[in-house]
Amino acid sequence: MSKGEQTRQAILDTAVRLASEVGLDGLTIGELAAATGMSKSGLFAHFGSREDLQLALLHHAAQQFTDDVLLPSLKEKRGLPRLQVIIERWLTRQQRSRLPGGCIFVAASTEFDDKPGPVRDEIGRYQHRWRDGLIRAIAFAVESGDLAPKTEVEQLAFEIYGLVLAAHHDERLFGDRHALDRARRGVAQRLAATRAQSKPRRARAA
Amino acid sequence: MSKGEQTRQAILDTAVRLASEVGLDGLTIGELAAATGMSKSGLFAHFGSREDLQLALLHHAAQQFTDDVLLPSLKEKRGLPRLQVIIERWLTRQQRSRLPGGCIFVAASTEFDDKPGPVRDEIGRYQHRWRDGLIRAIAFAVESGDLAPKTEVEQLAFEIYGLVLAAHHDERLFGDRHALDRARRGVAQRLAATRAQSKPRRARAA
Repeated sequence: MSKGEQTRQAILDTAVRLASEVGLDGLTIGELAAATGMSKSGLFAHFGSREDLQLALLHHAAQQFTDDVLLPSLKEKRGLPRLQVIIERWLTRQQRSRLPGGCIFVAASTEFDDKPGPVRDEIGRYQHRWRDGLIRAIAFAVESGDLAPKTEVEQLAFEIYGLVLAAHHDERLFGDRHALDRARRGVAQRLAATRAQSKPRRARAA
Repeated sequence: MSKGEQTRQAILDTAVRLASEVGLDGLTIGELAAATGMSKSGLFAHFGSREDLQLALLHHAAQQFTDDVLLPSLKEKRGLPRLQVIIERWLTRQQRSRLPGGCIFVAASTEFDDKPGPVRDEIGRYQHRWRDGLIRAIAFAVESGDLAPKTEVEQLAFEIYGLVLAAHHDERLFGDRHALDRARRGVAQRLAATRAQSKPRRARAA
């Protein structure tokens, strides 16, 4: 990695942390300059505009998410074991990543959902891509026989998504220590329900 | 209602609509003056400070939510029928209320969760109060025998909350027309699961 690239990555690390607190749209080049000790013109040399910075920041945050949640799951057997690691790492990411303001995608979704433009489009694309990733992980668990063939994959992904959103909401706003466990129980029940269906259907199909 | 009070209510209607788009913290007295056709000093006569305006706006939005979601449910029989009306009206509130930017409490939760102060405290209180309202409605459905005595009331409220959050997320960010139906199916399954438990347990207890 070149020195310029290293500097860029360090700036983006700081930018993601700041944006997690003040919001993606609340982050100014001036604040980022103050936090990194760089000049505004130095930052503009890396990012041509505030919008370019926002797009680069989203890309960086998505990469961090992949590194932290998806890559470690690849060590697990494809199917239910991998799906469970993905969900657990996703749920506990806030504690691990020490993003002071929580997930920037969740915050940016409500911040930008009615601000048409390239940033909103990019947030939508990342969120779609992540939902697709989750759907794929569930589909693998069906293929491998860990979940019932009749599992409604998109419905299950939607419900797991909701449990994680609720956990982050309760944890961050209420400071509720039970929030993660509530989400874990919900996920476990959903997965158990579709596993339970699996056996009799197989017998009937035979 | 006095003329002053009428003006205040009209200002707050506009303020809630604006805040739903630009965020609670994005709303300035200047923008609100432009949108209402009042002078800034006229607004300051009603709300002493920007923070006072934010607090009054939250109170107003909470009142709208109560009027739109809770009051109509009181016509239904206490128990499952009332609970179902509450959830359905909550889910479909965005279409009905025509808040251009969606629920201000959901947006304000992520916006303020790391901004300590009276506004954040107030958001937390309203969100807590609403969760308590949902818990109470579920508890009534247990009391009335519509749901199983062993229903885990707080867990169920948490899961329903997550389904509604996911629906609003998918509807607003993805423009997904299936989002509400996904949430409805999730809710119906959760309620059916606890109703199904009801019968055998009762037999065993007898």
